[in-house]
Amino acid sequence: SKMPCKLLNLCEYETHKLVRIQSVRLGSLKWTFNGVILMFICIMMLWNKEYQEHDYVVSSVTAKVKGVALTSLPDVGDIVWDVVDYSEPSQGKNSFFVVTNVIVTKKQRQGKCPENIKIIVGIVCHVPHTIIQMLLSLSGVQTGACVKFDVTRKTCEVSAWCPIETKKKPPKPALLASAENFTVLIKNNIRFPNFNFMRRNILPEMTESYLKRCQFNRHTDPSCPIFRLGDIVKEAKENFSEMAVEGGVIGIQIKWDCNLDGFLRNCQPKYSFRRLDEKESNRTLYPGLNFRFARYQTEKGVEERTLFKAFGIRFDVMVFGKAGKFSIIQLIIFIGSTLSYYALVSVIQPFLFNLFQMQN
Amino acid sequence: SKMPCKLLNLCEYETHKLVRIQSVRLGSLKWTFNGVILMFICIMMLWNKEYQEHDYVVSSVTAKVKGVALTSLPDVGDIVWDVVDYSEPSQGKNSFFVVTNVIVTKKQRQGKCPENIKIIVGIVCHVPHTIIQMLLSLSGVQTGACVKFDVTRKTCEVSAWCPIETKKKPPKPALLASAENFTVLIKNNIRFPNFNFMRRNILPEMTESYLKRCQFNRHTDPSCPIFRLGDIVKEAKENFSEMAVEGGVIGIQIKWDCNLDGFLRNCQPKYSFRRLDEKESNRTLYPGLNFRFARYQTEKGVEERTLFKAFGIRFDVMVFGKAGKFSIIQLIIFIGSTLSYYALVSVIQPFLFNLFQMQN
Amino acid sequence: SKMPCKLLNLCEYETHKLVRIQSVRLGSLKWTFNGVILMFICIMMLWNKEYQEHDYVVSSVTAKVKGVALTSLPDVGDIVWDVVDYSEPSQGKNSFFVVTNVIVTKKQRQGKCPENIKIIVGIVCHVPHTIIQMLLSLSGVQTGACVKFDVTRKTCEVSAWCPIETKKKPPKPALLASAENFTVLIKNNIRFPNFNFMRRNILPEMTESYLKRCQFNRHTDPSCPIFRLGDIVKEAKENFSEMAVEGGVIGIQIKWDCNLDGFLRNCQPKYSFRRLDEKESNRTLYPGLNFRFARYQTEKGVEERTLFKAFGIRFDVMVFGKAGKFSIIQLIIFIGSTLSYYALVSVIQPFLFNLFQMQN
Repeated sequence: SKMPCKLLNLCEYETHKLVRIQSVRLGSLKWTFNGVILMFICIMMLWNKEYQEHDYVVSSVTAKVKGVALTSLPDVGDIVWDVVDYSEPSQGKNSFFVVTNVIVTKKQRQGKCPENIKIIVGIVCHVPHTIIQMLLSLSGVQTGACVKFDVTRKTCEVSAWCPIETKKKPPKPALLASAENFTVLIKNNIRFPNFNFMRRNILPEMTESYLKRCQFNRHTDPSCPIFRLGDIVKEAKENFSEMAVEGGVIGIQIKWDCNLDGFLRNCQPKYSFRRLDEKESNRTLYPGLNFRFARYQTEKGVEERTLFKAFGIRFDVMVFGKAGKFSIIQLIIFIGSTLSYYALVSVIQPFLFNLFQMQN
Repeated sequence: SKMPCKLLNLCEYETHKLVRIQSVRLGSLKWTFNGVILMFICIMMLWNKEYQEHDYVVSSVTAKVKGVALTSLPDVGDIVWDVVDYSEPSQGKNSFFVVTNVIVTKKQRQGKCPENIKIIVGIVCHVPHTIIQMLLSLSGVQTGACVKFDVTRKTCEVSAWCPIETKKKPPKPALLASAENFTVLIKNNIRFPNFNFMRRNILPEMTESYLKRCQFNRHTDPSCPIFRLGDIVKEAKENFSEMAVEGGVIGIQIKWDCNLDGFLRNCQPKYSFRRLDEKESNRTLYPGLNFRFARYQTEKGVEERTLFKAFGIRFDVMVFGKAGKFSIIQLIIFIGSTLSYYALVSVIQPFLFNLFQMQN
Repeated sequence: SKMPCKLLNLCEYETHKLVRIQSVRLGSLKWTFNGVILMFICIMMLWNKEYQEHDYVVSSVTAKVKGVALTSLPDVGDIVWDVVDYSEPSQGKNSFFVVTNVIVTKKQRQGKCPENIKIIVGIVCHVPHTIIQMLLSLSGVQTGACVKFDVTRKTCEVSAWCPIETKKKPPKPALLASAENFTVLIKNNIRFPNFNFMRRNILPEMTESYLKRCQFNRHTDPSCPIFRLGDIVKEAKENFSEMAVEGGVIGIQIKWDCNLDGFLRNCQPKYSFRRLDEKESNRTLYPGLNFRFARYQTEKGVEERTLFKAFGIRFDVMVFGKAGKFSIIQLIIFIGSTLSYYALVSVIQPFLFNLFQMQN
């Protein structure tokens, strides 16, 4: 029964032959050395929370805008704008849009009319339907005819909603510049699916009466979920009345940097604001933000529409966050990775000590 | 040529001096010891799939709601609501909204009228436009005048869409409570970009006839992509008819936990449902979910609108998932991390064996 | 003072006893061996950028569609469709929808009328309101009566918007097939929150005049942010005119694979296109993509609506990306993981060398 034992190397035990040197100096040096490495590894681990596994946030946002504005349009008169008029319903989106400026074209009907002269500079009629025209945003499909635009000039005739929208530049100052005083309540509900942890940005300690009068302020009230639009824009280092003219995009960033470990538990939203589109209008194509929408009606059997070119500020609520939680696996892997540094050290040490002894 | 050889330490080979001890006991103990560690590391690796690299899901969702409801409004009569009336077009969003309750204000026109008395309790007229008023959701811009609201009371006059919406509380029971029986088909197409792997929640084995009659059920049919709204709400442990009154937000969570390795390949969606907003209305500001929208029309040259305050349930489709796939790099790193435990053990072993031998 | 020293093992220093063998062969073999391993580890590290920490992209998208189409509907005549008519306002969404085909039902009013015969094949009247009917998309709520549908047939009477939409199949070829020539400008603004790094897909070197005439082309102009819809569909290996009939979903994927390290800095968007929904209409329920919307008007005090069943292509802009940046922690962990391979090698080496010497 000796043979299999020998073959499988089961009966032998090998160990390194050690040399024991009696030296207070070398002994304490060794321990200092090891202590320093241990400390370094521990600090690195705690600082970067290398003992944690991570999960990314899943979020749901609801925004509710409040406010009323009064505008005086030259050919229309006083108009009151409430939330229904100036803001798209914002259910289900991570963003909401507030109209700050508008060009209205009334009583458009399907028909044929001369193309707006300002748009088609440099383009001759009868040119077939090409890509370049598309990019120039022609208002209709060319019929091929050339008709009078005004007393002196002719332009291509188009099949379109007539009359064609004329003004190109938005009014300045913006018609709804008072939207600065509107407020928005943002409800944000987050979840870390792997940890089965959820939280809201309306914190449990907030009472209803607090929520009724609070307003977000970086310094005095940094956790109130109600924001004045003007404050948001100011925090993004922009000027509301300037931005209101052509519109733009503002990012409302909610950052959840959560530590879910025991008594270090901490999971609070942090708000920050930033302009997302290019500010300088001369550096970009189609500066600002605008879109067209229409209200349709039938007048004596003929369909009409009122065309709105709405300029405004879109607020994108961007939620990002990471949660960390203690994980034994992560810890084992991290320690495993650093242990080898000890091994490295035990290889280097003899050389260092030789050096050390030579000097003495 | 001996010099460079010596300098560069190329001619020497150092190895540890080993002591070979003949002992069946120690030999087998050593092997048991190492075997246990190896097993532990292997189990840990397989359990946590540490040999895999990961990728996060990219998803696209389409939802299609079906159903018709009949309501009897006191001053309007019987009205049929089909999907066009009660649901916003849900293209491109990860959520869809179903109206379950509604307050209608007909024939609003731009003008001046007394503010609704219930809203402005505690606020005197002539107060300049302040933030507090904003939060209280005034319906218009104050003109500064004080006018008769009813026989006994006066309120501030406002420029607004008149008459002003009066009712504040939604009807109970909800007008469209029968939305419980509506169904929704959710198409979800996912992708793991790094692995170039895509999949749909309509599985290849599902036939058209199956899809025409199937309905999601946790126990009997857990992979059918057609959901009855009432079932979704019930799965989220809520009561549909209660929730329908003030509205709310329900999360439809689709979890893709995919293993893309060979014969362990598994990538099936798992559905779960949860209420996302705060349930108890007394614990939150603006409970439930509602928004206003209007239909505009021109009556004898004057613009009118019908204002709808729509309460409803928003269903947020939240897709999250992770895919794992074998990666040689991950495996090498993991083994590297754990190998050092062996090194640690080989340091500890002699001490343990000394202990062991002393006892014998 | 010797006692604590001895107890704490502070005065001793242990080192392995080494055997030094003079052999050019073994020495150079050892160094080759170690060099190969070092090289392998370095290549692996550089190739997989294991020295980097990663962050995932946060993105904001704005899309602006341009183009006009002319359709000839049989019972309506020539109609011009501009962007307001055929596209939903696309603010705040990561997707935009272009109508390519449409079924119009004019002058619907609330009332009672016979159910469309094609829909209810196989269903007898008086059947109580069941789930199966819901799935079959009845147009209204059954009154329980059975009324004449045409000269020979009777169907269930329903409370609904009458007359009920009749046509089920979309026109072929698609009415707005010329949407192929429409263009879309996509503005994408990304951010890596942990690295505080942001970028836009409109690159700094792009001038306004370039942006006014450029058009995306995989080969000649791969970074222009203006896309012709027909090109997008072609890149996704689909046929626009076929797809326009029933609609569908196309994914516009923008991939940001960024390296933020020094002179290797590289962060450019890459565009790719893919069809997201199931192409073969016989393999899926409700093929394509369509939704209904209505325009409401009042005709002599009675509410009417024009119902549109709009088929179209939804373009989902999907942004994904990862950025890597040098991290000393990641590097230490990676080196730690691989160092142990050296340890492993130093265990194996003596055996290899014994073998090697025996052969000589």
